[in-house]
Parts: sequence; structure tokens; C-alpha cells
Amino acid sequence: MQRPALTLLAASLMLAHGLACAADAPTTIPAAAVQTAEQLRDKALHDDTAYKTVESLTTEIGARMAGGANDPRARAWAIAKFKALGFDKVYTEPVTYPLWVRRSEHGAIVAPFPQPLTLIALGYSPGTPKGGLTADIVQFPSLEALKAADPATVKGKIVYIGYRMHRTKDGHDYGIGAGIREDGPQVAMTKGAVGFLLRSAGTDANSRTPHTGVTEFSDPAKAIPAAALSNPDADQLERVLAYGKPVTFKLDLDCGIEGQYTGYNVIGDIVGSKHPDQVVVIGGHLDSWDPGTGAIDDGAGVAIALGAAKVIHDLPQHPDRTVRVIAFANEEMGLWGGRAYADKHAAEVSKFQLGSESDLGAAPVYQMSASVKPQARGAIEQIAKVLAPIGVVYDPKRPGGGGSDLSQMHQKGMAALSLDQDATYYFDWHHTANDTLDKIDPAQLAQNVAVYAVFTYMAAQADGDFGSAPKAFAGDGAGE
Amino acid sequence: MQRPALTLLAASLMLAHGLACAADAPTTIPAAAVQTAEQLRDKALHDDTAYKTVESLTTEIGARMAGGANDPRARAWAIAKFKALGFDKVYTEPVTYPLWVRRSEHGAIVAPFPQPLTLIALGYSPGTPKGGLTADIVQFPSLEALKAADPATVKGKIVYIGYRMHRTKDGHDYGIGAGIREDGPQVAMTKGAVGFLLRSAGTDANSRTPHTGVTEFSDPAKAIPAAALSNPDADQLERVLAYGKPVTFKLDLDCGIEGQYTGYNVIGDIVGSKHPDQVVVIGGHLDSWDPGTGAIDDGAGVAIALGAAKVIHDLPQHPDRTVRVIAFANEEMGLWGGRAYADKHAAEVSKFQLGSESDLGAAPVYQMSASVKPQARGAIEQIAKVLAPIGVVYDPKRPGGGGSDLSQMHQKGMAALSLDQDATYYFDWHHTANDTLDKIDPAQLAQNVAVYAVFTYMAAQADGDFGSAPKAFAGDGAGE
Repeated sequence: MQRPALTLLAASLMLAHGLACAADAPTTIPAAAVQTAEQLRDKALHDDTAYKTVESLTTEIGARMAGGANDPRARAWAIAKFKALGFDKVYTEPVTYPLWVRRSEHGAIVAPFPQPLTLIALGYSPGTPKGGLTADIVQFPSLEALKAADPATVKGKIVYIGYRMHRTKDGHDYGIGAGIREDGPQVAMTKGAVGFLLRSAGTDANSRTPHTGVTEFSDPAKAIPAAALSNPDADQLERVLAYGKPVTFKLDLDCGIEGQYTGYNVIGDIVGSKHPDQVVVIGGHLDSWDPGTGAIDDGAGVAIALGAAKVIHDLPQHPDRTVRVIAFANEEMGLWGGRAYADKHAAEVSKFQLGSESDLGAAPVYQMSASVKPQARGAIEQIAKVLAPIGVVYDPKRPGGGGSDLSQMHQKGMAALSLDQDATYYFDWHHTANDTLDKIDPAQLAQNVAVYAVFTYMAAQADGDFGSAPKAFAGDGAGE
Repeated sequence: MQRPALTLLAASLMLAHGLACAADAPTTIPAAAVQTAEQLRDKALHDDTAYKTVESLTTEIGARMAGGANDPRARAWAIAKFKALGFDKVYTEPVTYPLWVRRSEHGAIVAPFPQPLTLIALGYSPGTPKGGLTADIVQFPSLEALKAADPATVKGKIVYIGYRMHRTKDGHDYGIGAGIREDGPQVAMTKGAVGFLLRSAGTDANSRTPHTGVTEFSDPAKAIPAAALSNPDADQLERVLAYGKPVTFKLDLDCGIEGQYTGYNVIGDIVGSKHPDQVVVIGGHLDSWDPGTGAIDDGAGVAIALGAAKVIHDLPQHPDRTVRVIAFANEEMGLWGGRAYADKHAAEVSKFQLGSESDLGAAPVYQMSASVKPQARGAIEQIAKVLAPIGVVYDPKRPGGGGSDLSQMHQKGMAALSLDQDATYYFDWHHTANDTLDKIDPAQLAQNVAVYAVFTYMAAQADGDFGSAPKAFAGDGAGE
């Protein structure tokens, strides 16, 4: 029994060693694949599939708020577009979420200087009582100041926070602006406020197009109406407040949650020729906010992913692994599509070779980072080398989060990239009526397509994986 | 009898000669006045009266459409402001005009791709039938193309003209854009169209803030509803039209003329110390369009005139001639205030030494021209010399029109200047919701105040006149 035992031991040692060897072997991308990726890159820079796709979506469908009248029309558009582009499989997966409806919104200073102000209700805001609610404004410079406030100063009032976002290439100021939008109403509610206003989380200092976006309430039954003023209207409110007299405001919102809705992620696969069960996943989200036509957020992302898949599909041979494009449902009101997808596919996370979603507009990708196993760093460097000539700088120190919806698969353990777009002007138009096709430069959009085509193809052809496994990247700080 | 006859002849010859001498003597500005004007210029560059004035008007009153709820509030504000600034006389003169009312406006493509488009009704447009009117769109590239069109192609349709304005320093493209807005509906009406749409007469190519403005109908009883699409919405309509399918549009305007209204020009005089009956007149118009707060159009003009008068008022001694500031009523719907003023004061035109109104925003004056008698050219050159250090170039070849409302006094024979402001960005915001205080740079506004203070004071102190007389400048091409 020793022998067998020894044999078994040896065999198990050998197996372990073999596995360790496979796990330790650096992932590399074959020279032929690198060469093809370079060709894909150069072809994508002159391919107009993505631009025509976002033009088609924004022109034929326009705004497509999750659960709204255009939700099924957008889905039908996406299914038809995936099929027309030649995907081997096109299918949908359900996504269920609370249905939020916007009908109308008005705001006005009642005293001391009566005048309307331009505002927009936040997603998940309840409506006001019919005919509006009227209360005095109490102003805070920041969320922290509101958190520190004595509830007696807030009770019965409409809270206003006037944080002013500034343009930056990485868009980091949105963290503060969106933080006020997401958390401010809840904090105001707990202190007894009857309404909440913020200066729009947007960098268009001189445009009267307020920025909507989702907010959150721990207890929807106690939620208070919440809306964003355009930047010039916030300036105006602050000027009126500066007179030092009580400022009375009338807020009249007709909106709210009305039951549930089931939408669908729309998914297309170019099935892998060698490893059809292994998947490189890219995408964008199909829903948009309602005032614009959802060109930069996120028609562009859907179009970039479809454009990248198209140039790969047009190769003489399908790549080794499956290329999957997902047009997610309802990203805007809380990553509903991304969470549904990750919940459904968590058990298969090891089959997801690498993923990244495009959801920061249509300006060029300038920076790339990755969350992968150490043995795949060389392959990431190979990808970066192909992307360097089109302006992408690889930062090996930062993690890669996978983008908005795909951050959820990354949290489950999927290896992921961050492909950072230049966000300098993105927050001028984000979540406003100004999110329209004219904001997209076709050449800049094509650069994105090239980036996605290159990384997708190279990951699909890699010898080895990037380290996806359950919870493989927990605590990397990305995708959270 | 010969002698007396000879004496009379000689006397009459001498008188004629004397008059001719006075008329032929060059108008000059005394050295002391030039020196004071230089001091006024330098003081005005650091005086914030104008900025505080336009801030007060736009903050405390906001939009002030002629005949609307804010019309009497704006008038009361103006009277109080003139008095607070120390004018010797503050008074009003009535201006009666058709009252046009805007309640709501909506537009939507019904087919082939249903979606709302952002538009704004034009001043004097009638409303649609309740519930809107629905018709197919017929597109024309220009007003000329519409004029040349076979009525059979237009009858029963909604005409759309898509002329795209471009930014220029002198704003000349507005001539074409405003021409389409003013004349297009009338031409469409005569060919049997049921509605009229234009691409906004504005240079903000990427902003969903449509530009309103007045239109004209020869027969109001036959007028058709007319509105302007924002530039991105015009782009969208043109993309949909490019599919080559019939495009059905629903236009729903609730607006129209409802009787007459009597508003008032608000006038303030700093009474001249030597020639109180001789007047240098400056001003702006108090009314604005309704979507913005009328900061650049024309709170700035009123503020510039008041700021200039203020620094003159603060001199140790009143100037020789009267300085008059007029805040005109209802410029926007057809120079109603300017026409009423000119009709009332035509007989006194010779008493108007020189005039100019500010109504092209708040950017710096870069060019000056004049319609004056030849003997006053030297005085104009003296004024130009004081203005040259602050960036004003004198063009002796072009006439001076006096500005919008004061063009009407110029047509009666008043000597007038044109003080051309840099209009590069003016038509981004003009007649839109984006006409708000943030568009005004205080230093640029102060440059305007300096220009107005200098010319006003120097004209008030001149030895001699500038040639105002009934119809003195007929046919100079200015002010028409």
C-alpha cells in the first residue's frame, strides 16, 4: 500500500506541481495575435460602425429611461442591431427593479424675489403633495456641514447644498457632486427636512440644463422630494440668499416609484472557436436618463463595444474564446443590470477571461490599469504596448475596476481593466438635456473602438488566463 | 428805399453769413473737458455701479417680458434705481403695444421616430388649436429657397428652415438668422403652410436652449404658429428627415396676442448746467425675453448707461448739457419704446446733441463710428482719441446708427454713434434661458461704462453741435 500510497503521493505531488506550474506560468499573447491586434487597431480607427450605431440609437429611439415607453423600443433596437452585426447568439436576461416615473417638475422662489428656477427631479425622488410644497431654504456648503447640522435648523425646511464641480481629466470631482446627490436627501430627511435641492453635479457652469441622477433613501416611505438646480439657477438662489432675508421656495414635483418593472440585458456572443465557454466581456448600458438622448451616457459605450466586436467578427476566423457584448439594462438607477448579471453568473466567474465596460462618454481613452493575477501582468503589458501608439498610458500601480455594470462581475472575481476616458467635458453634459449626438467626435469614438478591439482580441487569444476566480480581487479597491 | 433795401439786404447777407459761419465752424471739445473725460474713463474702469445694477435687476426682478407680470415690477425697480443714483428728474412716458402672452410650448416628431424636440414659440406667434396641430414637415435650406418654392409643396405642411449661424465678432450672421425668424413665417403662411419651424437664430451649436425672438405677420388673422428648435434638436430633425421618409410633427403652442398693453419708457435726466434743453441721450431697454433673466439683453445696456451717468453725476459740477438715460419699454417685440419716444420727440430732434444705446451684450466695445455733420468729425476724433487706450478703434467711413431703440431718433435726424461690442459669444445666449448674469464679466462691463461716460461727457461739453436736425442723416444706411 506504500507503493500505491507512494504512487498516489507522487501522483498528487506531481499533479499539484503541474497545477502550480500552470498557475505560475506567465500568461502570454502569441506573436500572431499581437500582429492581428495591431491590424484591428488600425482598422478600427477608420471604422464608422460605432458612430453609425450611436447615431441610429439616439436618432431612432432617443431617450430611453429604464422602464419608460422607450425601454422596449430600445431593447428591440439592440436585438436587431446585434443580429445585423452578425453575432452568433443574441439573447436577453431579465432585470427587475422599482419603476420610477417622471411627469413634471417646477421650482420657484416665492419670496423675497418671486421667480421660477430651472431644476430637475432626482431619480427615486418622491413627488411633492399635489400643488407643491412651500418652505424656507436652509443652505449648507457641503454634505459634511449638513451632517454636522443641528436638526432644529433643518426641520421643516428645504435643504440646499451648493457644491460646485470643476472640470478635471479624470472627472474625480464627480465623486463629491454625486455623493451629495446620492446621500444628501437621506441625511436631510433624517434631520426633518421637507425637501432637498442641490447645485447640479455638473461642470457646465453657465448652462441652464440641470443634471439629474439617482438618489437613495433607506426608507422610501419617509423619502423627501429632491431635485437639482442648474448651475446658473444655483448661482441665482445663492445671490438671493445673500440678501440675508428668509428665502421661501415652492417645489412642485410629479414623480415617484410606481411598482416594479422587468427589463432585460441584451447580450450578443461571437462564439469562441477553441474555448467557447471562456468569455471576454465588454459592453455599455442601454438605458439613459430622459432629458437628453443618451449619446455620451451611454449610447457611446454600447456603440464602442459593438464596434469593437464587429471588427473582430470580420476577421477570417473567430477568436479562440467567446467575445460577449452586453447592453445592460438600468445602470442609471443603481447598476440594476450589472448586479442582475453578476448575481446570475457569479458561479461561472472563472470562465470570464477579462472584462471592461465603457461608460464615461466618447472622448479618447488615455489611461489603462488592470486587476489581474501577477502572472498575467506581462500579457497586460503586451496589450498596453499595442495601445501606446494611440495615446493610452498603462499605469501598473492602479487596479482595474471593469466599469460601471461590470464592476459587479469584478467584485465576484472577474479580472478586469479600467480604460479611463478623458472626462474633461463629460460632466458638462452628463445626465442633462445636452447629452446628444453632437457631443460625440467620430474620430475620438473610433479611438475607443480600437482600444476595446485590441484588448478584447488579445485577451481572447492569450495563452493562459488573467486570474479570474471567486473573490479573486477582493479588496483591490476597484469596482466598489 | 434803396438804402433801406440795401441795408436789409446787407443785414440779411450778414445774418446768413453769420449763421453759415456758426454752422461751418468746427465743433470742438475744450481741453479741460478732454482731461475730465480721461479721468472719467479711468474711474469708470474701476466703478462697479453698472455690475451692481445689472445684478440687482436680474436677481430681484429676473425675466421681464413686455406686458408680463414683471413689467410693472421692473418699471418700479428702474424708477427707484434712477432716483437712488441721483438723477435730477425721473419720469416715464407711455408706450402702447399688442400684448403677446406665452403659456406653454411643446413639439414632437410623431413619425417615423416618435420623440419630443425642444422648441420655443416666437413672439407674436399665434397658438395652435388646443391639443396641437399635426402635419408633415417640408424642409428648406434658406428663406430664398422657401420664397422660390411652389406653394403646392408647402400647402398644409409645417415649413422648416435649417440655416446655421456662425460666431463672428460683429455678429453679422444674425442678419440672416433673424431674417428667417422675422420673415419666414409670413412667407410660409402666404404659401399655405400650417406651421413654421426654424433652427434657432443662435450660435450655441451644442446647447438645447432654443432662441426666441419676434416674428411678423402682415395679417395677424391669418398668422400661423411659429417656433424655433434648439440647434441640437434641429440637428436631430435633419437626421430624421435624412432617412427620406415622411416626417410627421406635432406642434402644440399655447400663446398669442391678447389685446393691448401700455408700458412705459423710464427716463432720468442729469440736467445740464448751461444748456438744460440740449440733451445727450444714452440708454438700453428694460424689457427682456422671458426664458432667461435678461442680463446681456439688455440689463447690461441699462446698467452701462446708468453707470456712465453715475460717474458723470459724481463730478463736482453738472455738465453743460443735459445727460439723459432712457430705459426703453418693449424693444424686443419691435422697438415699441424707441418708436414711441421718437414719435413724441421728433420735433425736438435738433436739441438732441448726440445719442447711442447699448444693446449687444456686455463684451467690450471694439469699434466706433458716427453719423454727424462734417464739421463735427474733429470732435468725434477727439472722443476716439480718449477711447483708443481702452481698445476702441474709430472707423470714419461707416455711419453711426444709435443702437436699437435710439435708431428711431437717428432716423428723425439725431446725430448718433455706433459703439460696436464684441458679439462673438452674444448669440450663444441671446433670447434664451442662458441669458443670465454669469455671462457678464464685470471688467468687460466696466469698459463699456468708460466708453459711454467718455462720449456722453465730451458731447455734453462740446463747443458746437453734431448736426442733429430733422432728417439730417436720411439715407446714411444706419439706424434702419
